[in-house]
Amino acid sequence: MEFLPAELIKKKRRGYSHSQAELKFLIDHYVSGEIPDYQMSAWLMASFLNGLSLEETANLTNIMKHSGRVIEFNNLKHKAIDKHSTGGVGDKLSLILGPIAAACGVPVPMIAGRGLGHTGGTLDKLEAIPGFSIDINIDDFVDRIGQSNIAIIGQTEEICPADKKIYALRDVTATVESLPLICASIMSKKLAEGISGLVLDVKWGSGAFMKTVEDAEALANLLCDTGVENNIDVTALITDMNQPLGQYIGNALEIVETNAILKNESDDFVNLDRVQDSRQLSLHLAANMVLLSGLAEDFDSALSQCEKVLEDGSAWKKWQELIQKQGGDLDKLPHAPQCYVILSPKKGYLESFNTEKIGLSSINLGAGRLKTTDEIDMVAGIKCHKKIGDFVEKEEPIFTIYSSDISRFENTEKMLLDCFTLSEEKVRPNELIVKTIRKQRK
Amino acid sequence: MEFLPAELIKKKRRGYSHSQAELKFLIDHYVSGEIPDYQMSAWLMASFLNGLSLEETANLTNIMKHSGRVIEFNNLKHKAIDKHSTGGVGDKLSLILGPIAAACGVPVPMIAGRGLGHTGGTLDKLEAIPGFSIDINIDDFVDRIGQSNIAIIGQTEEICPADKKIYALRDVTATVESLPLICASIMSKKLAEGISGLVLDVKWGSGAFMKTVEDAEALANLLCDTGVENNIDVTALITDMNQPLGQYIGNALEIVETNAILKNESDDFVNLDRVQDSRQLSLHLAANMVLLSGLAEDFDSALSQCEKVLEDGSAWKKWQELIQKQGGDLDKLPHAPQCYVILSPKKGYLESFNTEKIGLSSINLGAGRLKTTDEIDMVAGIKCHKKIGDFVEKEEPIFTIYSSDISRFENTEKMLLDCFTLSEEKVRPNELIVKTIRKQRK
Repeated sequence: MEFLPAELIKKKRRGYSHSQAELKFLIDHYVSGEIPDYQMSAWLMASFLNGLSLEETANLTNIMKHSGRVIEFNNLKHKAIDKHSTGGVGDKLSLILGPIAAACGVPVPMIAGRGLGHTGGTLDKLEAIPGFSIDINIDDFVDRIGQSNIAIIGQTEEICPADKKIYALRDVTATVESLPLICASIMSKKLAEGISGLVLDVKWGSGAFMKTVEDAEALANLLCDTGVENNIDVTALITDMNQPLGQYIGNALEIVETNAILKNESDDFVNLDRVQDSRQLSLHLAANMVLLSGLAEDFDSALSQCEKVLEDGSAWKKWQELIQKQGGDLDKLPHAPQCYVILSPKKGYLESFNTEKIGLSSINLGAGRLKTTDEIDMVAGIKCHKKIGDFVEKEEPIFTIYSSDISRFENTEKMLLDCFTLSEEKVRPNELIVKTIRKQRK
Repeated sequence: MEFLPAELIKKKRRGYSHSQAELKFLIDHYVSGEIPDYQMSAWLMASFLNGLSLEETANLTNIMKHSGRVIEFNNLKHKAIDKHSTGGVGDKLSLILGPIAAACGVPVPMIAGRGLGHTGGTLDKLEAIPGFSIDINIDDFVDRIGQSNIAIIGQTEEICPADKKIYALRDVTATVESLPLICASIMSKKLAEGISGLVLDVKWGSGAFMKTVEDAEALANLLCDTGVENNIDVTALITDMNQPLGQYIGNALEIVETNAILKNESDDFVNLDRVQDSRQLSLHLAANMVLLSGLAEDFDSALSQCEKVLEDGSAWKKWQELIQKQGGDLDKLPHAPQCYVILSPKKGYLESFNTEKIGLSSINLGAGRLKTTDEIDMVAGIKCHKKIGDFVEKEEPIFTIYSSDISRFENTEKMLLDCFTLSEEKVRPNELIVKTIRKQRK
């Protein structure tokens, strides 16, 4: 072997930086099985505790990207752009902004993930639509982007096998929460999509991985810089996740909210005025995709284009086309057989949510997974009636909960009654978009 | 399971201390195979980088000690005492001090190790004696200590299996050089011998694991404190390893030096005046064993007893008895078929040795192992003609090298010519024994 694995571990243990060749040796031989799990996990812990430089992070990302197939687009009129969110509660934005951007002419090759822990996953939400299939091979996926600008598939064995193997090891060796390792995992998969630009929704707050704006900004900058080093343009929005996005949490329920926003119409379930955060943030993220794709001169005109495709129905048509082409039938969306309304035990201004715990309450109802092998109840979930700053009367509905299994209601009610605080004084909500960071390849 | 392994790894990654129950869970489940190597190696790296407290180190040592059989002595007249060295070049002291202490009446249950890297191992040296066998079961070993006060065996599967499994993993995951992990490895094996006291030879300098007195003292204190926490008395000597001990390095050659010192007679190969460091340090270590065993009132009378058994021939008889009982024949000690004398290229006072490189030169001749699977040439080795402070004339012999394979001479000569420096000014050698640390159980 070109290097001794134990010497590379020692180097990182001592806090030195690895060359590109050293990292390539480590990752390639780990994927091939020549470096065993026990050496990789020691290296991961040393990297967790001693850190990786931007150069190492960018190199690691590139090496992981090239561990499998890298998609190449040849016949697109505009630059392919994707979006990634660091994960939140009620975050159905990919479903909304994908059709908006695609309707504006942006090629959007989405490789989406499943939910784990308190945050949901785009694939699970789509699979709440009866018949919807993510079972498309890469060549067909590339063709569909050329035809419709949008298609959505899941992680495959072909793309970034290094990330898959390393992530599984990090999960059982307490080496997940490392910024450089998180960054390499996210960016390698996105870069393998063959995109020219990426819009990031980096969330901060009680429902986010990053609990402060500063931490979110540090991750956003690392992600942007890693993208730029790997020759794509990256725009990151730092956004508020101190309360669930929109009104609905849960797979079928989030499709209901998505439909209303894309149809640009309030209905029995969704009052558009109450889901302005979902709608506005989707528009802003989509507009940044339009801008990166080269379809607009500036952000304001990009935003106007996005608003127009919502208003003239073309985003809604794009969404229907996407669902239909992947075999889904929106008319057959399932609904929960029973629901239960949770009333506020006292009055006051809504001061704060424990958003992570709201996410965990939705899992308690069956809407998500704590382990990868857990099964999902597609109709389970939560409607949030109130936003931070709203006044809540005593005995006014604050949450409605949905599940196929009513035995879960009692326990979940207890959890949710513990997920918000009220104040006697008026409360000002946080800004939805704190900051926009734009970085362009050199 | 009582604890989640990933949560224990995370706890150490965050720098918190483990309870006794947590460490026991970790070690016991690792030995049983329920915790896989990849989780243990992540924990080892987190412990390496974030440290283990004295309490954790003492608990870990105790848990590892109890992972296998713990020897118990019932019919000894005096306390069983062993000695451990942190490893040096030309360090044959266990072979000398064992018979001295045993001749004074100290029960010495020696479980010895093999050499790896630049330092030699006691077992390898003994196996240079034709017929010598370490293949004694534990019960017979206990009986022989009762009869003769001394017997020497190697590590068995029965004793400290946790140390064996953890050490093998540390070796391939760059987690060897951690004071608490080194301490737990050394002390768990010694405690399993059923000893009441331990004398430590903690070396510092160019041929030692610890390059400074301060580092050696830190390790010595940790070893002593860990022993005291586990209910034994420990005496540690901080000693000089800036030059090889005595004159000979290499397995059969070190037996030659041992014989001369124990016989208390110069011969064709060994001038006792030139191996005073080996002789004095052996006497001092043995005297501390006599003191710990309760056979002397104070150190000076213990030292007198040790000098007496050397002078009256009883140490030499004890050595002969030990060899003979374990099947060895000292008269058949092999000698190298050829040797080569390396001359000094210039004159001056011997200023310093690169002692580690001298150790590696002896391996180059065949006297040791770089990998555990390397085979040893028992007759290979080095005679060091000069000590630090000696005046060396131009073309005066400085080393003689021995091997079964003369093709190794040329390359080794080059290495050895690079292993010492000469000075025009007089040089004062370091003190052989820098400090003695005595710690008694409460």
